Amino acid sequence: MAPAIATKLYPLPSPLLLDGGQALAGVEVAYETYGELAPDKGNAILVCHALTGDQYVASRHPVTGKPGWWERMVGPGKPIDTDRFHVICANVIGGCMGSTGPASAASDGRPYAMRFPVITIRDMVRAQIALLDGLGIERLHAVVGGSMGGMQALSLAANFPDRAARVLAIATTARHSAQNIAFHEVGRQAVMADPDWQGGDYYGSGHAPDKGLSVARMAAHITYLSESGLTEKFGRNLQDRDSKTFGFDADFQVESYLRYQGSGFTQRFDANSYLFITRAMDYFDIAEEHGGLLAKAFAGSPARFCLVSFDSDWLYPTAESRHVVHALNAAGAAVSFVELSAPHGHDSFLLDVPALDRVVKGFIG
Amino acid sequence: MAPAIATKLYPLPSPLLLDGGQALAGVEVAYETYGELAPDKGNAILVCHALTGDQYVASRHPVTGKPGWWERMVGPGKPIDTDRFHVICANVIGGCMGSTGPASAASDGRPYAMRFPVITIRDMVRAQIALLDGLGIERLHAVVGGSMGGMQALSLAANFPDRAARVLAIATTARHSAQNIAFHEVGRQAVMADPDWQGGDYYGSGHAPDKGLSVARMAAHITYLSESGLTEKFGRNLQDRDSKTFGFDADFQVESYLRYQGSGFTQRFDANSYLFITRAMDYFDIAEEHGGLLAKAFAGSPARFCLVSFDSDWLYPTAESRHVVHALNAAGAAVSFVELSAPHGHDSFLLDVPALDRVVKGFIG
Repeated sequence: MAPAIATKLYPLPSPLLLDGGQALAGVEVAYETYGELAPDKGNAILVCHALTGDQYVASRHPVTGKPGWWERMVGPGKPIDTDRFHVICANVIGGCMGSTGPASAASDGRPYAMRFPVITIRDMVRAQIALLDGLGIERLHAVVGGSMGGMQALSLAANFPDRAARVLAIATTARHSAQNIAFHEVGRQAVMADPDWQGGDYYGSGHAPDKGLSVARMAAHITYLSESGLTEKFGRNLQDRDSKTFGFDADFQVESYLRYQGSGFTQRFDANSYLFITRAMDYFDIAEEHGGLLAKAFAGSPARFCLVSFDSDWLYPTAESRHVVHALNAAGAAVSFVELSAPHGHDSFLLDVPALDRVVKGFIG
Repeated sequence: MAPAIATKLYPLPSPLLLDGGQALAGVEVAYETYGELAPDKGNAILVCHALTGDQYVASRHPVTGKPGWWERMVGPGKPIDTDRFHVICANVIGGCMGSTGPASAASDGRPYAMRFPVITIRDMVRAQIALLDGLGIERLHAVVGGSMGGMQALSLAANFPDRAARVLAIATTARHSAQNIAFHEVGRQAVMADPDWQGGDYYGSGHAPDKGLSVARMAAHITYLSESGLTEKFGRNLQDRDSKTFGFDADFQVESYLRYQGSGFTQRFDANSYLFITRAMDYFDIAEEHGGLLAKAFAGSPARFCLVSFDSDWLYPTAESRHVVHALNAAGAAVSFVELSAPHGHDSFLLDVPALDRVVKGFIG
């Protein structure tokens, strides 16, 4: 079962129509808000989270006790200034932090598990739009996201062009590449290879596929970092020892770090959610949804766009952002684009990159 | 137990002294030869294989029935011309194609499994040198290898400088980087997470950790290919279907391909060998073995060197080859270096790259 989490919950008033053709009834969206909503409701900013993120963008995570995942960016006096803006961040559907997902109870009272419908990024956005409807917010001041959050921002712009005045998409892409799909497939196979996965029906069994999920996270984590960043941070340094043990312990710091990342992840994330969300990302291809031409997706968009990439990001490299920018140019949209230099790889959007703070602050206005 | 394989076997006359401090007794080296050895034994070329390679460089693989892994390079009239040269290729120790490895029987008659000593690339080379001693070959015309084979070629040059007149190291490195170690650690954790691994004692149990080994192979395989190569070969093409299934089947060709690579691999490779050989590669750092200075490793070397890298290889990128070349220059060694343009990523050394054929032929002489 989904953990009981203290968060705001919005029950959708009607079933959510999904790209897969199903109508998902009883959907709840878990969300957090920060800052006051203006009387005209014109100062709302929707922040969309990444694959393993959640609604706790600027408040303590209820499971790990750690600070919000983007506190450096969102808060009073921060680039996304909650003294001025009303920030909304919702857990994606398919997730595991309160929004309806595979761990939620289906109509028969048992968890959906693998009976949960395969969702898309656009389906996630539909749930976000339903939440905005519920909150009475017709037009966002901005929609903002990095990585999968950026996919949602672009999808929102393409499918609900009147709902956001500004679209800020960071370290992201308009489609998952073959290599992106390949890494996700490795992760899914690692989860499914774990006998504790039990075909997805592990809830309440006392055994979750932690080992498989941990391997999946380890593989994914490598893609979030740059080769040079790993070399600078760890190199071939040994972990708490002076010489190699000639065994299979974590001799190297990088091994120890990865194992820690893997095992820590299993304490806060549901393996089935990992399957469904990675699937949604792999299915993501905005052009395909719009007749095969990306420019068509943004034709006539009244929004202003800002794309940001990082030179060390090899998961969603600058070429992917540039591809989006070219399409926006072809669509006649207002777009600015910057490639920032940062050593941290894909994870740069979450880390200390002062230039990103300036870009975000400048674009949000 | 190790499979019974038709191959030449050389039993080492004395225990093999290992970097880990042990003396491994009863070592056998499985090898194949091609072409006639000249009366003066001056025309021998040692080809060293990569992580999952074997001695069947130019002859049919006894398990898969497939052609040798480098038939395009080794054979009559080929760049490494067996009408002129006597080519030797030996399975590395720790391997699973006949040379002593974790599946071999220890002195108590049971398979070593995880009791096998952790070996190094230099230990593999020591076994190759012992084989050359047994064959009466004092000085190779050349030692040649790609990837882990290149590591062995460089290690042989550094540790047994009088045993090879020419050293050809392709798509390789003198040390494993943090990212290299990280990917290998993911693979090892995938194997060890499989309950069928049974702490390594799966021989004869009827269950091998095929699922874990398959995930390991899938993750590794991505690193052997370039992002652009994957995009060109697979893109987002669907596999035998017109539209997405909204399920977890292999909808995309790249998923199907990776699963096939993973499951096929388990039929010809031993999971414990995968653990020991990846460990040897992660431990590899020639400079560390020689006082921390790579140039020292090659000081006074009488050999001629040739380094080849590929522009699309992100596993052992050109910078790693250049690092070796700088050290060889500093050591005053004769060295040539070329970065070839090829779309296939790291695997380029195994594939159709005519420029590589010309370089190999020209250097071998």
